[in-house]
Amino acid sequence: EFLRLFHTEAEEPGATAVKGVAARAASFEERLAEVRDEIARTGTYVHTSAELTFGARVAWRQSARCIGRLYWRSLHLRDRRHVVAPDEVAAECVGHVDEATRRGRIRSTITVFAPDTPTSPGPRVWNEQLIRYAGYRTGGRVLGDPRYVGFTDHARTLGWVPPSPMGRFDVLPLVVSGGGSFAAQGPQIYEIPPEKVLEVDLEHPDHRWFADLGLRWHALPVISNMRLDIGGVSYPAAPFNGWYMATEIGARNLADAERYDMLAEVAGKMGLDTSNDRTMWRDRAAVELTLAVQHSFDVAGVSMADHHGESARFLRHLEREEQSGRKCPVDWSWIVPPISGGLTPVFHRYYDEPTDTGPMFRMDPVQAARGQGCPM
Amino acid sequence: EFLRLFHTEAEEPGATAVKGVAARAASFEERLAEVRDEIARTGTYVHTSAELTFGARVAWRQSARCIGRLYWRSLHLRDRRHVVAPDEVAAECVGHVDEATRRGRIRSTITVFAPDTPTSPGPRVWNEQLIRYAGYRTGGRVLGDPRYVGFTDHARTLGWVPPSPMGRFDVLPLVVSGGGSFAAQGPQIYEIPPEKVLEVDLEHPDHRWFADLGLRWHALPVISNMRLDIGGVSYPAAPFNGWYMATEIGARNLADAERYDMLAEVAGKMGLDTSNDRTMWRDRAAVELTLAVQHSFDVAGVSMADHHGESARFLRHLEREEQSGRKCPVDWSWIVPPISGGLTPVFHRYYDEPTDTGPMFRMDPVQAARGQGCPM
Ligand code: HEM
Ligand code: HEM
Repeated sequence: EFLRLFHTEAEEPGATAVKGVAARAASFEERLAEVRDEIARTGTYVHTSAELTFGARVAWRQSARCIGRLYWRSLHLRDRRHVVAPDEVAAECVGHVDEATRRGRIRSTITVFAPDTPTSPGPRVWNEQLIRYAGYRTGGRVLGDPRYVGFTDHARTLGWVPPSPMGRFDVLPLVVSGGGSFAAQGPQIYEIPPEKVLEVDLEHPDHRWFADLGLRWHALPVISNMRLDIGGVSYPAAPFNGWYMATEIGARNLADAERYDMLAEVAGKMGLDTSNDRTMWRDRAAVELTLAVQHSFDVAGVSMADHHGESARFLRHLEREEQSGRKCPVDWSWIVPPISGGLTPVFHRYYDEPTDTGPMFRMDPVQAARGQGCPM
Repeated sequence: EFLRLFHTEAEEPGATAVKGVAARAASFEERLAEVRDEIARTGTYVHTSAELTFGARVAWRQSARCIGRLYWRSLHLRDRRHVVAPDEVAAECVGHVDEATRRGRIRSTITVFAPDTPTSPGPRVWNEQLIRYAGYRTGGRVLGDPRYVGFTDHARTLGWVPPSPMGRFDVLPLVVSGGGSFAAQGPQIYEIPPEKVLEVDLEHPDHRWFADLGLRWHALPVISNMRLDIGGVSYPAAPFNGWYMATEIGARNLADAERYDMLAEVAGKMGLDTSNDRTMWRDRAAVELTLAVQHSFDVAGVSMADHHGESARFLRHLEREEQSGRKCPVDWSWIVPPISGGLTPVFHRYYDEPTDTGPMFRMDPVQAARGQGCPM
């Protein structure tokens, strides 16, 4: 265990120094000796600020499923490694939302909480994303987001009281368990103050009736249940955000049959014949939904990528990485957008394989299950 | 070499017998002994009819990029293994087009020509598909299909005379080289009689102006430059066809920037703002193009799959293969359609890896280059 840890970290501080990110003068050899000594004494080591920032950025750069990586150097770090108490974790999550939203001028941000160490676990955020909508089982149907029915149930058993009346877009509470000695307390719930959650009401540039559907979405996507691994040190709570790409909301969250499943309703209002797949009513409705999302975010002044522009930017990223002599790991099936795949340049090429080494965001199976409401 | 050949074929006749496809009573052991003996004498062996039919069907079943595999058992075999002369190959290709088209009730068909043997090469078809449209360089632009500019040039150096005036949809001639002693003659050209080539004029169910674009497409997609490998015997010319899926034409052949590049023109006629990607004009135009293709083929009574139905059928195929205890190799990036990927159920799952063993359609690098016009 120790050996693997040691072996893994051996390169990382070096990489940091080589890239010139380290502010201090220590040479790779000095730093390596220091880290070895620290590991010998404590079983782990503490990243310098520069190492942590660089590690988080490289973890983004290595995210094979992310199309938004051109700006990986711009990731803003909130270093909260001293934070383990659940109250403080929750407060810092709210702080993250606040600082990253900036009234719509979204900034790519990561907040890193205390790591797991040989003697003490770090805190955990159970939510898949800091901001998500509740799903309520009502008879045979679901009110809200069906993906979070389990999570909503779990939050309720922890004492969360949904708003009354329940709605389709009720922001879920944070579910946090503390690190260190707080871990034994188990998960706690915390509401995010509504004024901190920027949301956009959806309307369509051509169809007046669209606004009457009463659809909305939150401005900020903050993935909060992936583990950040850097050089053998593992941060189980490290929520990060970029901004949305319109297709994620319009062609997946609002369109998927297992999510808000709005295609038939939109197609109906558009007057399309939904009795036959061959009228392409799904295809047409998904495009209009995505257009409505893009338009509404643009009008509201909230940062949002579109899949055409973002694909072009991603190819620029690939070029730059190649020029730097680096591989760029890519998961084709995640990079290609869920509509109009063939219309984007990212469709028409092959890529380097996803990687499993170096700084990475990883999904724990347990954390994944918790994000779906598993109470264990 | 011989050993590998021997090793490879060892299973195939067995598989045939096991599946009960072989009409004759020979046991696996008898057949195996026979094949060994034949290989010892001649350096190769001759498939029985049943083996060839079964092998071709399994090659389809194993095509990781093909979404149409549910009906793999229905593939119709035209056994032309005695044919090596280029005139006859060309005539049989025309016969294939005729028999498979059936005025629109398309039948999945493969014509197998003479194999490569240790003493004598089989014939080759140079075209990527039996029916494709010429591309002519005219100043800076291309008239017709830009993909076939090189192939068109090559056909002209072989003596092909394009129709006058040249058009956007001129069917290319067959370019065929014979097998055996004919191989030395090099490639020959043959026109396909126009009355054998069924084509569909494209119109849109809602937009009258669409027909004025003068678009059309051929009914029958016959891939003709892939090699069919079965049990160590290799057939370099084995053109096969299914029917089209609308997205192949509407969202790729007519839409791709390197093909007919029609999106901007269609969007213009639709009155969309093409100055900004965020109006989703590409997305809308691609859907309407695909719809026009689907509608026109349906009206003309020509077999055509749609991506929604075909995705569902493909999942049925996966289930059946699983029930049969077989793996089903899948290349996600080819199975997911070029528009509305996320709206089809094939998008939302993982698959078995593509395979490289067993009966297979393979692309030779040389044949691939020839399909693009390389004269070597
Ligand atoms: C700046 C704007 C950004 C854009 C437009 C963007 C876009 C995307 C998109 C479209 C996906 C696929 C999501 C899905 O299909 O569910 C994705 C996945 C991902 N992105 Fe980004 N991203 C951005 C910023 C970031 C940042 C700042 C990080 C980390 C520091 C990041 C890390 C990831 C990871 C780890 C995934 C995979 C998530 C998973 O496996 O569920 N992205 N991104
Ligand atoms: C019956 C209706 C069929 C449908 C709807 C169908 C559909 C498709 C589609 C949509 C593709 C992807 C094409 C592309 O993106 O360029 C494909 C590829 C393929 N199909 Fe099928 N197919 C059918 C029949 C067949 C048959 C009869 C065979 C062989 C006997 C076959 C073998 C293949 C192969 C080998 C590929 C990959 C071609 C390549 O690598 O370029 N398919 N099919």
